[in-house]
Amino acid sequence: MIKVIISGFNGSMGQKAVKMVNDSEDMQLVAGFNPVVTDLDPKAYGLAENVKIFNKLTDINLAADIWIDFSIPTAVFNNTKFAIEQGIRPVIGTSGMSENQTTELKKLADAEQLGGIIASNFGLSAVLMMKFAQVAAKYFAESEIIEKHHEDKIDAPSGTALNTARLIYEARGENQAQPSSEDPMHTRGGDYHGTKIHALRLPGFVADEEVIFGGIGETLTISQSTSDRQSFMTGVKLAVHEVMKQNQLVIGLEQII
Amino acid sequence: MIKVIISGFNGSMGQKAVKMVNDSEDMQLVAGFNPVVTDLDPKAYGLAENVKIFNKLTDINLAADIWIDFSIPTAVFNNTKFAIEQGIRPVIGTSGMSENQTTELKKLADAEQLGGIIASNFGLSAVLMMKFAQVAAKYFAESEIIEKHHEDKIDAPSGTALNTARLIYEARGENQAQPSSEDPMHTRGGDYHGTKIHALRLPGFVADEEVIFGGIGETLTISQSTSDRQSFMTGVKLAVHEVMKQNQLVIGLEQII
Amino acid sequence: MIKVIISGFNGSMGQKAVKMVNDSEDMQLVAGFNPVVTDLDPKAYGLAENVKIFNKLTDINLAADIWIDFSIPTAVFNNTKFAIEQGIRPVIGTSGMSENQTTELKKLADAEQLGGIIASNFGLSAVLMMKFAQVAAKYFAESEIIEKHHEDKIDAPSGTALNTARLIYEARGENQAQPSSEDPMHTRGGDYHGTKIHALRLPGFVADEEVIFGGIGETLTISQSTSDRQSFMTGVKLAVHEVMKQNQLVIGLEQII
Amino acid sequence: MIKVIISGFNGSMGQKAVKMVNDSEDMQLVAGFNPVVTDLDPKAYGLAENVKIFNKLTDINLAADIWIDFSIPTAVFNNTKFAIEQGIRPVIGTSGMSENQTTELKKLADAEQLGGIIASNFGLSAVLMMKFAQVAAKYFAESEIIEKHHEDKIDAPSGTALNTARLIYEARGENQAQPSSEDPMHTRGGDYHGTKIHALRLPGFVADEEVIFGGIGETLTISQSTSDRQSFMTGVKLAVHEVMKQNQLVIGLEQII
Repeated sequence: MIKVIISGFNGSMGQKAVKMVNDSEDMQLVAGFNPVVTDLDPKAYGLAENVKIFNKLTDINLAADIWIDFSIPTAVFNNTKFAIEQGIRPVIGTSGMSENQTTELKKLADAEQLGGIIASNFGLSAVLMMKFAQVAAKYFAESEIIEKHHEDKIDAPSGTALNTARLIYEARGENQAQPSSEDPMHTRGGDYHGTKIHALRLPGFVADEEVIFGGIGETLTISQSTSDRQSFMTGVKLAVHEVMKQNQLVIGLEQII
Repeated sequence: MIKVIISGFNGSMGQKAVKMVNDSEDMQLVAGFNPVVTDLDPKAYGLAENVKIFNKLTDINLAADIWIDFSIPTAVFNNTKFAIEQGIRPVIGTSGMSENQTTELKKLADAEQLGGIIASNFGLSAVLMMKFAQVAAKYFAESEIIEKHHEDKIDAPSGTALNTARLIYEARGENQAQPSSEDPMHTRGGDYHGTKIHALRLPGFVADEEVIFGGIGETLTISQSTSDRQSFMTGVKLAVHEVMKQNQLVIGLEQII
Repeated sequence: MIKVIISGFNGSMGQKAVKMVNDSEDMQLVAGFNPVVTDLDPKAYGLAENVKIFNKLTDINLAADIWIDFSIPTAVFNNTKFAIEQGIRPVIGTSGMSENQTTELKKLADAEQLGGIIASNFGLSAVLMMKFAQVAAKYFAESEIIEKHHEDKIDAPSGTALNTARLIYEARGENQAQPSSEDPMHTRGGDYHGTKIHALRLPGFVADEEVIFGGIGETLTISQSTSDRQSFMTGVKLAVHEVMKQNQLVIGLEQII
Repeated sequence: MIKVIISGFNGSMGQKAVKMVNDSEDMQLVAGFNPVVTDLDPKAYGLAENVKIFNKLTDINLAADIWIDFSIPTAVFNNTKFAIEQGIRPVIGTSGMSENQTTELKKLADAEQLGGIIASNFGLSAVLMMKFAQVAAKYFAESEIIEKHHEDKIDAPSGTALNTARLIYEARGENQAQPSSEDPMHTRGGDYHGTKIHALRLPGFVADEEVIFGGIGETLTISQSTSDRQSFMTGVKLAVHEVMKQNQLVIGLEQII
């Protein structure tokens, strides 16, 4: 049994992680951590009696294999550092760490030969889409990206769309050529080294992403659609299993699939 | 048999019109007209012997029911006027006439109770898409448009995309509300009274158009795809048959479907 | 204020109806009904204090404008009959009534000049899709339908797909011609008077439906996607408002849009 | 300059190959071969004066680097064998060879350390789609395939759809589980080891293919669309360049991308 501690266990993503662990035959939730909770009774959160609830890092004194973190940007660095020092493999989905912080944590874990992962996106379909786009970019000189999100998303484009454009650019090693066209209404989208990005914001969408490659007489489209954010937990589960076999910390789910 | 004259018979669209007429059991091509041709032998254009070729309007002296016009912007007004004066019903696909010219031709034809049509788009799927979008706009307050064309199209957005946005706006009678969002790369598309338009230009596409309506928990998408411009002739054929029954000139294929 | 009673108020769809009514500025929830509840305290269901809870039809003695019903097949006929007799306009989303029952209820309501609606599908995008498909069927002789649902749906095809095929057939008045083709694996889908229906069952989908019309060189596609069944309440809300203006009972949301 | 001979130079695909070679800056068409032509004047085929036309294999006596073959099933084996014996690298798009024949040709070429390729599909988007599907199959346990072709295609499913299903099955190493469902109309498609295949036949499509992978709350779709079969030549061109660097004969475009 893989023993798991979940940091941010009662937040939106944390609850999904709890469900994933409980639904997995080879994992056991041993503790939940959140500095802002006051009630330490697991039943208050619908958890089994033998799950410990902590609100202070330094109180955590039990053996565990995996530290899943869906907490907040200001806490994640200290949480992860603590986990590594305790020999608990980190699986970190909380965003907001600087590159310096990430590098420091990787050094720390690698020195201990401790497996771990820090990933901004645990969506398997999104990560595979990006991987495939990198390959297709070598064979198709022209591509555009469309992303569709719910109307409450306040920024555009999405991180996934921008990452995809960046990976395409890196795979090609040069800007995509763009023919000049008359476009008084600015309908041609945002430009990332020649790859155009189009963002839609409409109710009815959760999070969809599409990369289209065009060649003479043919197009190749890789698209992913999210209907429920529980989907992220498929990637977290995959990461947990992989991290148990690794002896270093990796950055990005794409490193292990 | 419906007797047809085709103006611009040897141009790109004219040839498609010739094919459509020849493939139709109830139509007969009686003449082709183009002021720039010098060879008046129908065989030089792969046409049957009994098809007359003219290069001067005033030479055209034979009875016909329909005048199909795929010529050039500077010629279409005079061509259409001539057809109406001869009692030949005009089916006009050539663009470039002013509103004044169109109005004058309509008056002329209506006075004679002569059926006819002037249309910028004979694509049946595009025209139906626009009709449906008008209806959907009454039930969904939010919509966006994506159009995809080959990389050689030099302007954006397409006329069809812009027309669709206009029809949506008219059906609603008010601007679509747009939540403010951070969009430093300008990925949110062109704005037409709140409906966003996104234009893609990639090899592999001929002409695709998509209108997406979003509501709570659902989306409705109406899309059309063109793989071959011969598709326009389905609309021209429909128009020919309809115009034979009409006693006035109409503007736009949507008026008769 | 439109006063609303919700039958089946604490079921899955009933709760969505409660949310819709509470979110609407011109509606007020006056009562919830369910014969199986024993606790009549509205707070037990998160409802406002002034909402009455009933578990016997004959106890319902308060004035109301609308009876929304998301109960069960064996109860819906009696519920609806009771509502009509009380002069409360029925908006019925519960399935399972026979044609005879529906006809009897319509006679009853029409005699009282009472507005009402019985609909198997309150999904606005699905109903519009079907309406548009009926129109397109007149102009395109060939069409196929694809529907995609979650893997737990135990029957295929979906009711919406089959209804769409039926409406297409009725609009054409004749079978769609099918070229014979070799198909040893039976990949060409189910056949409804020549329109092929293809059903997919995969996790990740909630309920998607797509009708594709094909002509020379072009296709027209009308598709709808459901990401959250709260979408049904857009149609219920529309129906409530429309039913307040009607003086007869109609069958099907398509009758009022 | 890469010197190219095209076998079947005046057939439908052969002409596309001629166009591709003429459009390539680093290739030169030196000869066309077809046993059924009688006119050996290159101008009769719109070719440059210095292109030789042959109608007998044994007459071909000029130096060349590449033998592109789009001929007929009964001729391709002998053509390819001849090319290898002359030290001309074969790029074979003609289908119809047995596995034995293919193996024999590979042995022959490998013994000479001669690069070459035999491929049933030079469509780059289709081949990449299949490659990506193989990878995705490892992470998603459930998938279905939809293919859409013009109404004149007489067999179903397409070779590409079936190949994709086979690659998915091989990647998984086990059958895909299928929940039992009621399906009286047979709408659930053809079955290949649990992966369902759905074939559509409608005018307006050339050749489209789509693989959908479904997981909890998400879907991943890889699709390719062909609007013009000139697209095959992108793959042929890529193969020509790659084959110049290889010292063995490979089977399938996927081996070199």
